[in-house]
Amino acid sequence: MNKRPLILVVNDDGYQAKGLLSLIEVAKTKGDVLVVAPDGPRSGMSHAITMNVPLRLKKLQESENFNFYTTNGTPVDCVKLAQKVILNKSYPDLIISGINHGSNSAISILYSGTMAAALEGAFENVPSIGFSLLSFDADADFTIAKEYAGKIIDHVLKEGLPERTCLNVNIPYIKVEECNGIRVTRQAKGYWNENLIPHKDPHGGIYYWLTGSFVNLDGKEDTDEWALANNYVSVHPVQFDLTAHAHIDEMKHWESKILQL
Amino acid sequence: MNKRPLILVVNDDGYQAKGLLSLIEVAKTKGDVLVVAPDGPRSGMSHAITMNVPLRLKKLQESENFNFYTTNGTPVDCVKLAQKVILNKSYPDLIISGINHGSNSAISILYSGTMAAALEGAFENVPSIGFSLLSFDADADFTIAKEYAGKIIDHVLKEGLPERTCLNVNIPYIKVEECNGIRVTRQAKGYWNENLIPHKDPHGGIYYWLTGSFVNLDGKEDTDEWALANNYVSVHPVQFDLTAHAHIDEMKHWESKILQL
Repeated sequence: MNKRPLILVVNDDGYQAKGLLSLIEVAKTKGDVLVVAPDGPRSGMSHAITMNVPLRLKKLQESENFNFYTTNGTPVDCVKLAQKVILNKSYPDLIISGINHGSNSAISILYSGTMAAALEGAFENVPSIGFSLLSFDADADFTIAKEYAGKIIDHVLKEGLPERTCLNVNIPYIKVEECNGIRVTRQAKGYWNENLIPHKDPHGGIYYWLTGSFVNLDGKEDTDEWALANNYVSVHPVQFDLTAHAHIDEMKHWESKILQL
Repeated sequence: MNKRPLILVVNDDGYQAKGLLSLIEVAKTKGDVLVVAPDGPRSGMSHAITMNVPLRLKKLQESENFNFYTTNGTPVDCVKLAQKVILNKSYPDLIISGINHGSNSAISILYSGTMAAALEGAFENVPSIGFSLLSFDADADFTIAKEYAGKIIDHVLKEGLPERTCLNVNIPYIKVEECNGIRVTRQAKGYWNENLIPHKDPHGGIYYWLTGSFVNLDGKEDTDEWALANNYVSVHPVQFDLTAHAHIDEMKHWESKILQL
């Protein structure tokens, strides 16, 4: 690449998050940077888009090599606003999302705003990577995350990604020297076992807070969960065809059977 | 099944939507019904969950065979509240979501709150179906949708679904007698080409409305888009492993290569 690449940085924890500022720091060493971040936390927003409320964009910083906007939208809206409005329907060379405060491994990918933004890039075939660090601490130490994000960004800028495939990168919360390296992984099977904790408000009304813990149904060594539990950075290639291809043939007889009901 | 099945009905267009009331009508002929619906429209909410605001549940109707709640949460929250709070961690026999006002074929499945609720059921291996009618009209005629929803519900209650697989059922907006039947389909490849239409508010501020049109990259006859364009009901079996399995092997060399950067 002769010219400096244009890197779009988005996140779901909002424009003030340490994880975003850490990722911007890395991105600035690799290319020109455009940031579009939500104006507050948007965790658990998944692939939500804003349809019933108008979207706003606010410019925080502007220069030749660094532009920073906030929006009232979701992480996916950030990508759409960047590509369709700010870049006037042209595309960045790379989209990076995060660094999320907390894991987005296994099934969490489907709840994640961080990864939805990366998927949104993949929809239009822009190389895209979501980064997550396994600490929910707002003041977490992002040293290891910056180290590996830098290496992975270098690699993807040089080699690209398979067509319409993005990366879900999860980084264990350990010291750089404790890390065993990188594993290319698949999504572990499992689900969230939720509790909805009831509370009572001062007027006697009941409300609920959503909490839960992940149940891993998949002990195999090729999964993201295994990699993270064993001090590896998990690099999970992600696509967005949800078809249960394995079951199409066995279900073909439904076509005639259901009509007879 | 000796006893009447318990059917959970949810949606994303809110508790007053004609599509929801149509699906409740069908469900009541098949079993006992629990409805948990958002207290207003939640289109485009995807798999969002509510983490920063407490969740509320409001009981609208209560009887032995029919219970109807609303919540301030998302479609996925509806499923979690039903299973974890109202049913006290037991599961319904079937989850049905919809009937959505508008298509959820191809890539739209990833933006869809209707389908996210069905996927949420599949996460915990509850047979789940999302239904969508190809009309955004709030007063659309749901005759064909009710007809096919009834048949498909009968079939799934009798035969079940493959493990952790749900159905994305899209129904063309035509007369019953114009329908050519059912096709078991895969998700068509394509993306949304968005426009963010700028408007000016009375104070001179710019805001944007998100609009767009679907670009179909996939002309094949086994896709959901083909089925719908040819007056078939599309029955798309859906799973939630987003791993790009086809690319794992070719990316294995990254594990050593990236570390050398």
